[in-house]
Parts: sequence; C-alpha cells; structure tokens
Amino acid sequence: MPHIALRTDLFGITSLLDYRRQTAGPLCELTQLLLRGPSTLTEAERELIATYVSYRNDCTFCRSAHGAATCQLPGGSLEQLEAVQRELSTAPASKKMLTLLHIAGKVQQNGRFVTIEDADAARQAGATDLEIHDTVLIAALFCLYNRYVDGLATVTPADPAFYEALGQRISTRGYMMPANEYQPLQYEKK
Amino acid sequence: MPHIALRTDLFGITSLLDYRRQTAGPLCELTQLLLRGPSTLTEAERELIATYVSYRNDCTFCRSAHGAATCQLPGGSLEQLEAVQRELSTAPASKKMLTLLHIAGKVQQNGRFVTIEDADAARQAGATDLEIHDTVLIAALFCLYNRYVDGLATVTPADPAFYEALGQRISTRGYMMPANEYQPLQYEKK
Repeated sequence: MPHIALRTDLFGITSLLDYRRQTAGPLCELTQLLLRGPSTLTEAERELIATYVSYRNDCTFCRSAHGAATCQLPGGSLEQLEAVQRELSTAPASKKMLTLLHIAGKVQQNGRFVTIEDADAARQAGATDLEIHDTVLIAALFCLYNRYVDGLATVTPADPAFYEALGQRISTRGYMMPANEYQPLQYEKK
Repeated sequence: MPHIALRTDLFGITSLLDYRRQTAGPLCELTQLLLRGPSTLTEAERELIATYVSYRNDCTFCRSAHGAATCQLPGGSLEQLEAVQRELSTAPASKKMLTLLHIAGKVQQNGRFVTIEDADAARQAGATDLEIHDTVLIAALFCLYNRYVDGLATVTPADPAFYEALGQRISTRGYMMPANEYQPLQYEKK
C-alpha cells in the first residue's frame, strides 16, 4: 500500500512517473541517455550496473526489472548476474567490468569511499574516463530510483512474469515513454 | 584531485555538468522543477531538505552550496539550519517541516525505512501528498548528487566566500544554466 495516493493499477516506478509527469520527463531522459545512449559500455553492462546497485539497496522492484533487462540484452546472462550479486571478486566478467562494478558498489554506500586507486585500477583494465564517469552516475541514479520507489512504498508485484514483461519493454523500447503509455503492463500471469 | 580529467578551473558539480553536458540538461531541469518550480513548499524549505540530506551524506560541496542558498532565501536562517543538523526533533521549524525532514532523513539511509506512520504524521501536520512526494524525490535527488560529486572526487573549495557566491547564484537564478555559462565563479576571496 503506497504512502501517497497513486493509481492502483500501476506498479513501482511507473506509478510515480504517472503521478508527477513533469518530473518524469527529465528523469526518463537522463535514464535513456545513460542506459541507452551512445556508449562504449554495452546496454547489458549498463543494466548490470543498475541491477547491482539496486540489489545492494535491497530494492526488489528495480533489481527485478533491471535484472530481467540485463538477462534479455545481448551479452547478459542470469548466471553472470547471480554470480556478481553473490561475490563480485570471483564473478565471470571482464576485468574492466569487475573494476567498474567495484566502483558502483562503493558509490552505493557513499561517494567518498571511491579512491583514486579504484579509478586507476579501472583505467588499467581498459576503462576510459567517460566509462568511469557514467558508472558513477548510473550508480548514483539508481540510488535515487531505489529511494524514490521504496520511500513512497510503491506496489511491488511478486509474479516473475511481470518483470519479464517489463524487462522486455525496457530492453527493446528503452525509457522514453509517451505520457499516454502509462498503462498497466500486459503480461501473462504465472 | 578528481578521479577523472575534469576542467581544473571548475569545482564540485559544475565541473561534472561541464564534463558531460548531455546528462547535465535533464539533471538541471529536474532540479529546477523540484527546487524552483511551483510548490506549496517555499524555496528555502526545499533547499533545507537538500542541505539536510547532503549533510547526512557528508558531502561538503553540496551541503555548503545549498546551505548558503537556504540561508539567503526568504524564510531561511543559519540558526534554523544549524539546529536541524544538530538535532532535528528540537529544531525551530514548523511541525510540517519537521515531519518532512524526518522522512528525508530516512530516505537518505534507505527508502524502505519510511513508514506509513511517517507519512500519516506529515499529513496530520498539514502536508499534502504532493509535498510528501516532492520531499522523497528531493532527498533521493541529493543522494544522487552527493554520490556524483564525491564519487568522482571533484574539487571542494575551502573558502566560505565561494559558497556564499554560489548560493547567491542558485538562490537568485536557479539551476537552468546555459552551457556557455559553465565558467569559474567570480567571488571575492576571503
């Protein structure tokens, strides 16, 4: 039961984007730029950063939705995602992604925890300054989203089929949703 | 010394907005809407929420800049700001602001900590659902900014005159800065 009067047929972030469409505009634009805009990080890699941060913030809605998107995008897999969440240091990912996820994990706690050694390790593993920048900003953005979604107690569906369908939508269509499309997500209930 | 190659004549968030102007656009727009857009919360009240969260995240740049803006705006005062940071429950503020700041403080930790009792207490003190919504989103936005500014180790000036001048700029001109204005802030060094 949400803390404020949101539409009861919408869930998670969707109910908030519908509630305040003015702020939804720049939020969706920022997310689209960071997760779907031109980048040397793949879409799956960027969704993995978002999922890892949401997992660490214990935000069920965001980690389920972006976890589904990660696994559906080229290069992403459930096996890798679960390994990253279980123990980052031994997860099957490129050295570059491991160093970037390490930075994202620190940002999730507090930006001050990121050291120059962390940034240098990412660069030695092949990361560019822009990749380090975008990793920090994606991690910070999901610290916003996780707090927004949970701070107002939006409804979190339990059915995995919901997140499969939502993952499908954001992995194929991205984040720029026209206002008239804030409609309940159609999915096959399991 | 920043973790990535930023312009050396810019500080804090300004150096990041300059570094990645594409993401700066929606970020500034979101901030302008929340902190300067039409609202039943005063600008000083909204800046106080931003400052309180930045203080709790230990982000010197943000709490100094928004603290200066809070004190310069009508209704804001250093006395109140310091009291809020010292001990919220006894601070000289309206009951409504105390309940909203209490919610913001929980959002700063994790959105899941906000309870329906917290929201009800704010409503009983006169807060609207939209004010509760905006409080949560402002708190979440500054959890983003604090991590962005500190996660990349942007330069934090020590001179209080810098923040007085920056507070002056954001309290009178807001957050929509044209790209050609990412210039070093002119201020009288103390």
